[in-house]
Amino acid sequence: MATAGTADSGSTVPTGTSSIRRMAPAEMPGSSSTTQSMKKTIGHRGVETTTGETTYKKTTSSALKGAIQLGIAHTVGSLSQKAERDVLMQDFVVVESIFFPSEGSNLTPAHHYSDFRFKTYAPIAFRYFREMFGIRPDDYLYSLCNEPLIELSNPGASGSIFYVSSDDEFIIKTVQHKEAEFLQKLLPGYFMNINQNKRTLLPKFYGLYCVQAGGKNIRIVVMNNLLPRIVPMHLKYDLKGSTYKRRASLKEREKAVPTYKDLDFIQDLPEGLLLEADNFNALCKTIQRDCLLLQSFKIMDYSLLMGIHNLDQASRERERGGAASGDRVVLEGPVTPDQRRPQAQKSLYCTAMESIQGGR
Amino acid sequence: MATAGTADSGSTVPTGTSSIRRMAPAEMPGSSSTTQSMKKTIGHRGVETTTGETTYKKTTSSALKGAIQLGIAHTVGSLSQKAERDVLMQDFVVVESIFFPSEGSNLTPAHHYSDFRFKTYAPIAFRYFREMFGIRPDDYLYSLCNEPLIELSNPGASGSIFYVSSDDEFIIKTVQHKEAEFLQKLLPGYFMNINQNKRTLLPKFYGLYCVQAGGKNIRIVVMNNLLPRIVPMHLKYDLKGSTYKRRASLKEREKAVPTYKDLDFIQDLPEGLLLEADNFNALCKTIQRDCLLLQSFKIMDYSLLMGIHNLDQASRERERGGAASGDRVVLEGPVTPDQRRPQAQKSLYCTAMESIQGGR
Repeated sequence: MATAGTADSGSTVPTGTSSIRRMAPAEMPGSSSTTQSMKKTIGHRGVETTTGETTYKKTTSSALKGAIQLGIAHTVGSLSQKAERDVLMQDFVVVESIFFPSEGSNLTPAHHYSDFRFKTYAPIAFRYFREMFGIRPDDYLYSLCNEPLIELSNPGASGSIFYVSSDDEFIIKTVQHKEAEFLQKLLPGYFMNINQNKRTLLPKFYGLYCVQAGGKNIRIVVMNNLLPRIVPMHLKYDLKGSTYKRRASLKEREKAVPTYKDLDFIQDLPEGLLLEADNFNALCKTIQRDCLLLQSFKIMDYSLLMGIHNLDQASRERERGGAASGDRVVLEGPVTPDQRRPQAQKSLYCTAMESIQGGR
Repeated sequence: MATAGTADSGSTVPTGTSSIRRMAPAEMPGSSSTTQSMKKTIGHRGVETTTGETTYKKTTSSALKGAIQLGIAHTVGSLSQKAERDVLMQDFVVVESIFFPSEGSNLTPAHHYSDFRFKTYAPIAFRYFREMFGIRPDDYLYSLCNEPLIELSNPGASGSIFYVSSDDEFIIKTVQHKEAEFLQKLLPGYFMNINQNKRTLLPKFYGLYCVQAGGKNIRIVVMNNLLPRIVPMHLKYDLKGSTYKRRASLKEREKAVPTYKDLDFIQDLPEGLLLEADNFNALCKTIQRDCLLLQSFKIMDYSLLMGIHNLDQASRERERGGAASGDRVVLEGPVTPDQRRPQAQKSLYCTAMESIQGGR
């Protein structure tokens, strides 16, 4: 089974973040630097020398996670108090802001971190996006705020920190000022795309937030986890349609399931992949439509992340007691949804193949 | 059966044009004036003394109709050559322009009017709107360009000229510069509304064009005819929810089926209208959603046009051989669609009640 989606080419994290990468190079120092309290930094990401904990703009990862969880819990909770209504053009530029003093306030609980402010961008618009993507408010809240966020240990060269929710459904990524600003500007076009191009393979954006602490702004975006563990991928390719320097690095190849690139694909699968004619046509059409949108946004640095789940291999792995994939149950074919989840959230679990074949 | 929709309060023409009226007062001279060649003008509308023909910005109505028909035929024809694609944000500000010399050109036929230029605003966006409203390109072309446009003789106080297509489905209205500009700015919000609020009772905009002739710009908008003859209305009310000066004029009352106003409604129907609970709730919700959108557009001069088709009265009229409604067949209940039309165009014929009960 082939799984397709766009990917952040600067990272091996399987999420589609291409559309917010355009501005990154402008703000991102290419080389690492050292400061008094940091061991090594890439962009805004560093490591605290005393504890070894990751930092972002000198805020520790644990404080950032805490602020994100408190902030999202508050903003989603307060949004659920407000009546449902249609999204208006004005909603795309709204920014809601709430102060979280460590001693607590009428509106916010006490916490063990420094005071911070939490900003929610376009709350009504993102509520609509989440609804369109089948994410129920309760599940969003539960996945992100009631279970620990797990920091990814191989965050790539972008200088961002990545977190994944415990249930492996959501990715949180720090983004730079320009990227967040750019994403905000794209929201009307994004709205139009998800209404017209139901099969779109572009990243699903669920929220854009900002944690203000110690005079620094840390902006984060919440997205779908494109390749969750529930369907183990036996091969992964990050494809750009270019052959220039498009081979996975030696370091990447050392991983259990590396993300290969275009030149590897040509070498490993010289015949390409065999898709049924209908799926092939639907996929090509979707990629065309997505590329037209990216082009209209003047985005050119994007790629298609393709995961291959080999049914025979999965079957063999299962017979061997799932040895190859740790202690996880390996699924194949239609994914069995978690019984706790309602039907409405199907899209979360839908494989990309269902997305390819789905409604126009 | 009740039919509801917003209406142009400055006119008795049953079309929902409220959202493009906001700017009108600024440009519209309130009093009539006389010029050398014109008998009487209201705004840009006048009458030629020699022929008695209506003029708009000194262009005769027949020349205007000819230019509109040639222009729309060309723009819809050339659009059908282009591949279907998604609407992008950029599409809302596109203006296509084509010159029609009277002797004809490679692209345009010869004609009997003066040279003119025809501009189409946001062609891709309006193609999408027409598709959303179930208007097939062929039918749009046929209704507007292959049959005569009929000028309405009671165009109201707005200074606009109104045409209706021979099949009574489309209304064409001249709009002023500011109104056209305003409508263009609303297009992204309009796109969002028809995607979210499927039951919207706001006017259906099918096209925005401009005829440039003799140094003048004549902008026109093509809309749905809210109360087509096919369902004869026995009572009509233009409701604003205000009681200030909201009684139909004596002149209006002289008409066969006058459009009454709020004070008349209160007097004639002190108990209001009885709607089934589901319809009542759906209608209230839709009006709320429409009003929220109008408010977001900063439009406050709008009204609800309500038509009442009395089944008993229609039945009696039919028994009397349709005497009360001329030689037209009077229909009731679900409207029987013209056999020539495909199912896709259903929405054209849908009564507002179906619209009220329709999908979210």
